[in-house]
Amino acid sequence: MEKVGVVNIIPLRLPLVKEGDDLAKLIVDSVRDTGSRVENGDVFVVAHKIVSRVEGRVISLNDIKPSFFAATLAEYVEKSPELVEVILRESRKIVKVKGRHLITETRHGFVCANAGVDLSNTPGEDSVTLLPLDPDGSAERIRGGIFRLTGRKVAVIVSDTHGRPFRCGVVNVALGVAGLNPLFSYVGKRDLFGYRMQHTLVAVADLLASAAALVIGQCSEGVPVALIRGFVFSDEEGSGKDLIRPEEQDIFR
Amino acid sequence: MEKVGVVNIIPLRLPLVKEGDDLAKLIVDSVRDTGSRVENGDVFVVAHKIVSRVEGRVISLNDIKPSFFAATLAEYVEKSPELVEVILRESRKIVKVKGRHLITETRHGFVCANAGVDLSNTPGEDSVTLLPLDPDGSAERIRGGIFRLTGRKVAVIVSDTHGRPFRCGVVNVALGVAGLNPLFSYVGKRDLFGYRMQHTLVAVADLLASAAALVIGQCSEGVPVALIRGFVFSDEEGSGKDLIRPEEQDIFR
Repeated sequence: MEKVGVVNIIPLRLPLVKEGDDLAKLIVDSVRDTGSRVENGDVFVVAHKIVSRVEGRVISLNDIKPSFFAATLAEYVEKSPELVEVILRESRKIVKVKGRHLITETRHGFVCANAGVDLSNTPGEDSVTLLPLDPDGSAERIRGGIFRLTGRKVAVIVSDTHGRPFRCGVVNVALGVAGLNPLFSYVGKRDLFGYRMQHTLVAVADLLASAAALVIGQCSEGVPVALIRGFVFSDEEGSGKDLIRPEEQDIFR
Repeated sequence: MEKVGVVNIIPLRLPLVKEGDDLAKLIVDSVRDTGSRVENGDVFVVAHKIVSRVEGRVISLNDIKPSFFAATLAEYVEKSPELVEVILRESRKIVKVKGRHLITETRHGFVCANAGVDLSNTPGEDSVTLLPLDPDGSAERIRGGIFRLTGRKVAVIVSDTHGRPFRCGVVNVALGVAGLNPLFSYVGKRDLFGYRMQHTLVAVADLLASAAALVIGQCSEGVPVALIRGFVFSDEEGSGKDLIRPEEQDIFR
């Protein structure tokens, strides 16, 4: 982040994906469709929804038998018992229940509403999309696939949309990363006036995910991937889990 | 956000600013320095630090007499009594004190560490930078100034860097906005499969602030402003305060 130039955020249009599709190939094709080609240092931010879909992480609520606890909780949060059962299966801890809000810690450790289980952009009336089982692995498979197809070294972020305390509206965050360190430390660097920065750790992968959200639509635009070009990042490996604040360091848990 | 094209994030280099400087003029000049000129629909994200500086919101801790309460609290959070006194003066409520963390609600309503009072990028050993008194007003003055100089209708966001619960690292958020609605609602819009979105409200201004942070440095790069070009936004007026979640709707307060 030392010598900064213009950063471009390029929307990539993909066809509707289905289980088993090769996202790396679809992404490489979509870059070609823009009249460009994959370059070293490109960052691809991929909405988890299409990752979940190609990985078969879409299930029908009709197949779910809710437990007694799920049914009780469902009444409290005014959701269907089947949906709450799925949310609980995707969670390792309930963080907060209040009004219709059900905030849990997912199997990966992410703290978010409904364990990331999503009703929208899912084929079928009663189907829901779950988060990828291993978002870092998903990012790494796409990164590796793009490397094999093009010989280019890129970074890949699998992103999701989260609400947050204190502020209205959702923003985007990184669930999985490959080929990039999701955190950038300013510690020990000097500021404009020579002051040594004490503890600024920047969530670079979350900034990239939010930047990508300027072109990735929630609705029917068909842009599930953004190519971010011109951003110089540290390619030390890291994990999306590096962005999870450990519970014992989290003063709001 | 319906028909999306490429979004460019352009770093703008400004000279070191001092109290009374005309930010609108400096920004227009900096766009010219890039070989371009201001266009309708440009979004300027301005780090609050330079806004605070031109507005004289830099104070010396040597001039501060800490209260007894500030001195007691200072011992607890391991900060200087003068700094804690300033933080309390900038706050209307203490939200959480734990370890070295002092989270307050600022005079504007933002919930953040140390009421946004910052030791870095400040001239002078013992001086600190405070948040602008009225970030919306600051944004509006810059927006109006750019309009008078160029005749172009732009949007302006005054941004800050915040930590957050659950996730490591800081991201950027909008404190003040002018010429743009900081929230975008998908409510009632249809997704790819015809499902009507229930409650997705996107914090567009925070996405823009975080995107800008890809080029705005914390350190000595001298890039305090980003020009975001190509993003189609709703120019209904709004306020940075629209992004503050009211306490009674905040399940983590």
